Amino acid sequence: MARIVALCVALLLVLPACAANEVAPLLTTKQRFSMPAYTTVGGRTIESLQVGWESYGKLNQARDNVILITHYFSANSHAAGKYHPDDATSGYWDAIIGPGKAIDTNQYFVISVDSLANLNANDPSVITTGPSSINPDTGKPYGLDFPVVTIKDFVNVQKAVLESLGISKLHAVIGPSMGSMQALEWAASYPDWVPRMISVIGSGDSDAWTTAALEQWAIPIRLDKHWQDGDYYNSQPPVDGLAASLMLITQQALHPLYFNQQGETLNYHPLETGPLSSIRESHSIVNWLTQRARTRAQKMDANHLLYLVRACQLFLAGHGDSLQQSMRSVKAKTLFLPAENDLLLMPYMAQKAHDALLKQGKNSRYEELEGNLGHFDGVVNMQQKAELIRSFLQH
Amino acid sequence: MARIVALCVALLLVLPACAANEVAPLLTTKQRFSMPAYTTVGGRTIESLQVGWESYGKLNQARDNVILITHYFSANSHAAGKYHPDDATSGYWDAIIGPGKAIDTNQYFVISVDSLANLNANDPSVITTGPSSINPDTGKPYGLDFPVVTIKDFVNVQKAVLESLGISKLHAVIGPSMGSMQALEWAASYPDWVPRMISVIGSGDSDAWTTAALEQWAIPIRLDKHWQDGDYYNSQPPVDGLAASLMLITQQALHPLYFNQQGETLNYHPLETGPLSSIRESHSIVNWLTQRARTRAQKMDANHLLYLVRACQLFLAGHGDSLQQSMRSVKAKTLFLPAENDLLLMPYMAQKAHDALLKQGKNSRYEELEGNLGHFDGVVNMQQKAELIRSFLQH
Repeated sequence: MARIVALCVALLLVLPACAANEVAPLLTTKQRFSMPAYTTVGGRTIESLQVGWESYGKLNQARDNVILITHYFSANSHAAGKYHPDDATSGYWDAIIGPGKAIDTNQYFVISVDSLANLNANDPSVITTGPSSINPDTGKPYGLDFPVVTIKDFVNVQKAVLESLGISKLHAVIGPSMGSMQALEWAASYPDWVPRMISVIGSGDSDAWTTAALEQWAIPIRLDKHWQDGDYYNSQPPVDGLAASLMLITQQALHPLYFNQQGETLNYHPLETGPLSSIRESHSIVNWLTQRARTRAQKMDANHLLYLVRACQLFLAGHGDSLQQSMRSVKAKTLFLPAENDLLLMPYMAQKAHDALLKQGKNSRYEELEGNLGHFDGVVNMQQKAELIRSFLQH
Repeated sequence: MARIVALCVALLLVLPACAANEVAPLLTTKQRFSMPAYTTVGGRTIESLQVGWESYGKLNQARDNVILITHYFSANSHAAGKYHPDDATSGYWDAIIGPGKAIDTNQYFVISVDSLANLNANDPSVITTGPSSINPDTGKPYGLDFPVVTIKDFVNVQKAVLESLGISKLHAVIGPSMGSMQALEWAASYPDWVPRMISVIGSGDSDAWTTAALEQWAIPIRLDKHWQDGDYYNSQPPVDGLAASLMLITQQALHPLYFNQQGETLNYHPLETGPLSSIRESHSIVNWLTQRARTRAQKMDANHLLYLVRACQLFLAGHGDSLQQSMRSVKAKTLFLPAENDLLLMPYMAQKAHDALLKQGKNSRYEELEGNLGHFDGVVNMQQKAELIRSFLQH
């Protein structure tokens, strides 16, 4: 600890900010929420539903200082802080959630919930219900018998978690990417709960382009001979297919500007000796991407990825006939923060939802995130909008 | 015929141009070129190499009116015209190649050559040598024993075809996408042959981003259980993997603007009943993309796709240490025509090659194609640059 303080003091001489909370990290624990039964939007019942959740800051007596963070595709409810002071990393939005930060945990009770069919089903810090869960009717994992779930189902489960804590209204809901879908779903489906909504690298619906792009993520899993129509829980899981899916997701969530920087660190050259001499060898950048995907795949479940893809494909906030019609019910003031270089959910997606809200006479604002990372700028490069978010939450 | 003429006369009243060549289509035939042996850039020998080629217009006595068209990834040497007057479609660049067109076959002898490892190996109008060809040493298809080939190998084979016709210099070389790679390879590797080069939707090298993106096309094939390490010629071919690869290629070669138009014609809606009720069903836009890919896959060979991917990954025009260094040898005046909405080879790729040439004091020009199709605008939307191309070729 003394060394950390000394380092902080030293850094203060050269850096503008070395926040006190770096010394005493925000700590959190994963909690478990259970429901005896939940009926999906599609009309199927999931028995013994369980999801994890975590929170930062304190719920006030009026229970009206709640900010819900909805997580992205490959994340879970670990949005900020650490489980243990010696954890190597913090939650993904730690830059903007914490004491004195943009989403100030001295002021707000910040809460996040693990999604249904969470991708990291095999991560011990994730609690989820999905195709890898035991089907109480059979005593075996659901596999593809698990019902299709939608973004609205994620929202409904979050609502049940909040209600179990005596909460009946949010101060705000904020999320990136798949989390932005949940945030806008909240604002459209439960307008009396949501006075403020921030959509980061988001969209209001999945258009034909997005639904097809999402399908590309599912295809490699179904091609893997170990997938076996989703029934692989007593045999070898489809690791190659899952890793292939993650390679595609990773590349689409980034941008050439970042990828080519990575290429430089690998001394990438088009005419590398290995791939020139053998069709079975790969370029350095391919090996880097493959290795990264295989490492990440270890905690993930392939069927869960298929169900998350489907949830995102089925996304139209508010489940109306059209985005325009769906936006009528929104009461929240809204803020859209797409990333200028996003190739996955391009800024036109957020612009379309923002425009639909304006057309309905709603209070909406649109600003683009800068950065070289593409979609991923909405996860790791949020500090640039800290003051905007802080101000948006205060009014 | 009389009805066609009458229709043409009628159309002349409302359209600015109804060219006489619509009445008498440009006709061509596929020809065969054979080489007893060819040694690849990687140092391997291919015996009994055969490729197809076709031409439009007449070679003049001086043999100095030759324009070489280098084709894109999923195409072949059928760049223009028809094989029979009643063919349903013409070659892919028929809008700009023909009598009186931008690449005027009344003036130029236009020629194109099927690539090595051509993707449409099972199309009877394609002649190629690749992994599906019989290895003379074994009497069986090469499979993965076929040597890795590069864009420069494609160029070297084209050079052999031209030399067999007594040609020793080009008037110009022009190609889209993978064809642009060959065009710039020509200009960098054989500068005395090439006074003019046009790169359409092109690049000067494959950067880390592009090499990784190309790898994503290969992965589904290798995942297909029928692929069997490339040894499938006596069994069921990896159709599912090949179709998955084509789905990805198709989407990347297009743009949301076009895709969402397609979605409208299908009455696409995110909350379609089928995919909401069953994880095994798909959205209309996915079914459209799948069907299109399966149809195209019928004439294609999966291993050939892997070899074309590798050829593109290994691309650095001129095979120098860097693009900058490679561009020194170029003597051609060059024209780059990337597509403004290209998401596959984004305009920065062409810009980089153009800038490298300018930096070396070369004569280079850069203009962007407009359109909603993305990469594919460089194939089907070329008419907009017809006058620029005509003028570029005349000077």
